[in-house]
Amino acid sequence: MIDPEARTARAGATTTGPVTLINSFEVTPGRDEAFHALWERTSRYFTRQPGFRSLRLHRAVSDDAPYRWVNVARWDTEAHFRAAHATEEFRTVVTAPGWEEFPSTPVLLEEVTVVG
Amino acid sequence: MIDPEARTARAGATTTGPVTLINSFEVTPGRDEAFHALWERTSRYFTRQPGFRSLRLHRAVSDDAPYRWVNVARWDTEAHFRAAHATEEFRTVVTAPGWEEFPSTPVLLEEVTVVG
Repeated sequence: MIDPEARTARAGATTTGPVTLINSFEVTPGRDEAFHALWERTSRYFTRQPGFRSLRLHRAVSDDAPYRWVNVARWDTEAHFRAAHATEEFRTVVTAPGWEEFPSTPVLLEEVTVVG
Repeated sequence: MIDPEARTARAGATTTGPVTLINSFEVTPGRDEAFHALWERTSRYFTRQPGFRSLRLHRAVSDDAPYRWVNVARWDTEAHFRAAHATEEFRTVVTAPGWEEFPSTPVLLEEVTVVG
């Protein structure tokens, strides 16, 4: 069974500005297509939630990277992010069959320094 | 002793387009200022290397996040990224006293999907 809590970044003190989710996935080389198809279906839920700004999904250039896929998603506020992770539909999409193969490490962050 | 190899993302097959480094740091709550000062000094080396595009340094909203600071840096090509990690000055900056306190997990990736 997949625990939706383990699929959600930890809550912080309440922040008010934009936040960034960086979610790192463990994917065995050779399973990229299966992961990507599952991720695309899941991401359709998030991209239509209020406060969603953007995402960039990346794949590692190396097969032996500790995390082979990483999603960087920006949200208007932490409250928007939390609301999107508190619905029944969220529980359904993140516990969809297949996700148990791809452990993830989600972290919610704020930007501190930007260069370029 | 700090091993500069452990501070460098693994090489991939040769890629030709832009690449993104996502480097996740373990920082004890309460040590944010020490980490940030050390990171600022180190980042001055990278931001003046050929092929450097941009970086965004983030801090986790939660004290118990598995990685409390994450840097997302974009480079023109993997070759530029590798060249910046093959100099004597690189070895000097990443083995500077203080870094042993902050283990990092660097991963080099390519963008696959962009939304928004």
